[in-house]
Amino acid sequence: MFDLVRKISTRISKLRISLVARLLSKTWGLQSKGVKIYDFSAGQPGFQPPMELRRYLSQLLVQDFPQLYKYTPIEGIGELREAISDDLRGTYDFEIHPEKQIIITTGGEEALYLSLLVTVNEGDEVVLFDPTFLEYEPLVNLVGGKPVFVRTVEEKGYQPDIDDLMEKVSRKTKALILITPDNPTGRIIGIEEAKAIADLAEDYGFWVLSDETYQFMIFEGKHVPMYRFENIRDQIGIIGSFSKDTGLSGWRIGYIYGSEELIKEVKKAKEYITLNTPSIAQHAVVYFLRNKLRNTYTKYVVNEYRKRRDVLYKEIREKLPEAKPFKPQAAFYMFVNMEAYMKKHGFKASIELADYLLEKAHVATIPGEVCGPSSYNHIRFSFSSVNEGDIVEALDKISKIL
Amino acid sequence: MFDLVRKISTRISKLRISLVARLLSKTWGLQSKGVKIYDFSAGQPGFQPPMELRRYLSQLLVQDFPQLYKYTPIEGIGELREAISDDLRGTYDFEIHPEKQIIITTGGEEALYLSLLVTVNEGDEVVLFDPTFLEYEPLVNLVGGKPVFVRTVEEKGYQPDIDDLMEKVSRKTKALILITPDNPTGRIIGIEEAKAIADLAEDYGFWVLSDETYQFMIFEGKHVPMYRFENIRDQIGIIGSFSKDTGLSGWRIGYIYGSEELIKEVKKAKEYITLNTPSIAQHAVVYFLRNKLRNTYTKYVVNEYRKRRDVLYKEIREKLPEAKPFKPQAAFYMFVNMEAYMKKHGFKASIELADYLLEKAHVATIPGEVCGPSSYNHIRFSFSSVNEGDIVEALDKISKIL
Repeated sequence: MFDLVRKISTRISKLRISLVARLLSKTWGLQSKGVKIYDFSAGQPGFQPPMELRRYLSQLLVQDFPQLYKYTPIEGIGELREAISDDLRGTYDFEIHPEKQIIITTGGEEALYLSLLVTVNEGDEVVLFDPTFLEYEPLVNLVGGKPVFVRTVEEKGYQPDIDDLMEKVSRKTKALILITPDNPTGRIIGIEEAKAIADLAEDYGFWVLSDETYQFMIFEGKHVPMYRFENIRDQIGIIGSFSKDTGLSGWRIGYIYGSEELIKEVKKAKEYITLNTPSIAQHAVVYFLRNKLRNTYTKYVVNEYRKRRDVLYKEIREKLPEAKPFKPQAAFYMFVNMEAYMKKHGFKASIELADYLLEKAHVATIPGEVCGPSSYNHIRFSFSSVNEGDIVEALDKISKIL
Repeated sequence: MFDLVRKISTRISKLRISLVARLLSKTWGLQSKGVKIYDFSAGQPGFQPPMELRRYLSQLLVQDFPQLYKYTPIEGIGELREAISDDLRGTYDFEIHPEKQIIITTGGEEALYLSLLVTVNEGDEVVLFDPTFLEYEPLVNLVGGKPVFVRTVEEKGYQPDIDDLMEKVSRKTKALILITPDNPTGRIIGIEEAKAIADLAEDYGFWVLSDETYQFMIFEGKHVPMYRFENIRDQIGIIGSFSKDTGLSGWRIGYIYGSEELIKEVKKAKEYITLNTPSIAQHAVVYFLRNKLRNTYTKYVVNEYRKRRDVLYKEIREKLPEAKPFKPQAAFYMFVNMEAYMKKHGFKASIELADYLLEKAHVATIPGEVCGPSSYNHIRFSFSSVNEGDIVEALDKISKIL
C-alpha cells in the first residue's frame, strides 16, 4: 500500500491528550446508558449568553441585513476591532491600533495556532509551564516546535519557578506560552514573575504568547496583562477569547492583539485556513462590548462561579482531608493534589485515579498529567457546569470510594 | 534585531495573490470616495439565506436551547453528519458512514487546508490544473508542498489535458486537487477526464482532493461526483461547502467526506486549529437540509444566476466581439479570453487589464493569471453580486474604453 498520510500523523498521535479522549468516550458511554454523570471535566461555560444579546440577534436575523451572512475582511469587521481597542483602552489604558494591532480569530485556539504557525520553525524550542493548558504541548508539536517545560511552584500557588525559567531559556527559544489567569490552576501571574518573563524575552529575543482568555473571570486579585511591559511590545501576542465571558463558546470567536509584525503575518496565513471568523459571532460581540454586557452578565456569571468554587473548596477540605486543593483566583478550575489518596490506592498516574472516579463515582474530571509532565498526582475539577447541589453529592461519592 | 518571524513568511509572501489584494484595496478606496463600482470580483452569493431558515434561527435564539452556543464535537454534531449522509444518498446514491466518513469544517477553506496538512509532506508534489481556484497554489505552498500545474484545453471547455496529466504525475505526486464545477471557468469535469484522474490516482497512489463546492449550482449538464469511482475510495476526500447554496458564506461551514483514514487524521488536527465548526451554523444547515430548502431557495437562486450569466454572455459577445468568453455550465463565474484587446492596448498580463478596467470603467474583476500561470490573457467575471441592469451598464463602459 501507499504511504498516504503525512508524517504529521506521528506528531499528532504521540499526544498524551488521547487519554482525555478515552475518558470522554467512556463518559459518553455511561451517559448514553442513562447514568447521571457529575461533569467536572468540561471547560465550558455553564450559562447561555445574555438574553438581551440573543434578542438583538433574533431581531437582526429577520431584518434586511446582508452583512450578517457575508464574508468579512480576513482580519474581522472594523466595528469589532474598534470595539476591542476601546475596551482595552477602558480596561487597561492601552492604546491598541485597531487596524494594525488586532486580528479577529475563529476562537482562541486558532489565535494560538496561527501565532505559532508564523513564528516557530521546525525544531525551535517553545517554553511551556508545567502544568499548563492541555492543548499547548500538542499545538507546539503540530507546528514542529520542541516543547520545553519550566517548573511552577505548587507551594507558591503555581507561580513559575524563575530559576528554572532562567536555566531553560536560551538563544534556541523561539517563543514562550503563558496562560494567565491559568488553566488548570486558576492562578494569576505574579507581577515579579511576569516582569522576569518580559525581561528574559527581551534579552533572548523570543516571542511571548500570552493567553489571557480568562482576563475577565476574576474572583480575587487583579489580572496582570502582559502587554503592560513596554520592552516587549514588538514581540508579544496577547490571545483573547469571547468563549467564556459572553457564553458563546461554540461560535468560535477570539482575537490577538500586540505586535504589528505578528498580526500582519497571522493575517496572511488566516486567509488560507478559515478565511474569516464567523460573521454572526463578530456582530454578536460588537453588541456585547458596545452595550457593556460584561458589567451585568459576566459579573453575574463570575459571581455564580465564585459560589461554586467556594462550595467545592469547602467540600474537598472537609471530605478529602488529605487532598491539597489550590483555591483559584480566577477562571473556573480547581487543581487538586491527590498524592495521598493515590498512594493509598496504589495509583501511579492521575489517569488511573480519573478512571476510578468516573467508573466508581460517576465523576468526570481531567487527569493532571495531561497538563504537564510533573502533574501526575493532580486532578483538575472544572466547576463551570456543575451546580452547588451536585458538587456536594459528587464529593460525597468521591469520599466514599477513596 | 532578532529573527522573530518564521520562514513560512517567505512562503506566504511569494503569492501572486497579493495582486488581488492590491486590486481589492484600490476598489475599496474608490468606493469610499462614493464611486459606484460594478463588482464582478467577489465570489460571494448575491442573496441572503432563505427567510424560512432565518425565522427558524430567530426563534431558536430566544428559546432555552443551550446547544446552540456550546462547543460541539470536533467532527461536528451527529444530526448534521447524518443529514449530509442522507443528502448524499438521496442525491448520488452513495452510502457514506456519518461517523467515520464525514467531518464538518469551518468552511471549504479549512476542509482543504486540513486535508493538505495531514497528507502533504515538505517537498511533495501536488497537481493543480491551470487555471484553477486562486487559493490552491498558496495553500499548497503554505503546507510545504510543490505545486505542479497541468494544462487544460480552452477549446475543449477547459477540460484537463490528459496527455499532460499523464506526463506530470509520478511517484512523487502526493495529491491532486480538482475543482468541479470549476472556479474560475464554470466547467463540469468530463466523465472521461474524471475517470482518467481516478485511474492515475490508483496507479500512482496519490490523494484526490475534489472540491465540489458548486455541486448544487448547475445551469446545464450533470455534476460528476468523484466519489463515484470505487477504485479510489480509500484515497479520496471530497470537499463540500454550504457557503453558496445556503447563502451562509460568512458563517463558515463546509465538510469533507470520503476516506476513513483521511477523516480520522483531519479530526486530530482540527482539534488544535478551530476545535469545532461554529455551532449555530451547524444547526442552521441541519434545518436547511432536513427541510429541503435546496429545492426552493437554491433552485430560485441558481435560476437568477443563470439569467445573469445569459445577459453577461450576450453582452460580451455583442460589445466585445474579439473577446472569447466561455459559457459556464455551473457556479457563477465567466472566464473570458481577452487576448485580442490586450494586444491592442499593449497589456502583457491580465493584472494590467484588470487595473485598467477598474480605473477607467470602475469595473472590478479578477485577473486570470492568479488562477494559473498560463491564464495571463484572461479575466474572471463573477456574476453573483451584479444585477442584470448593472451588467449591461458595465459592458457599455468596458466596450467604450477597449
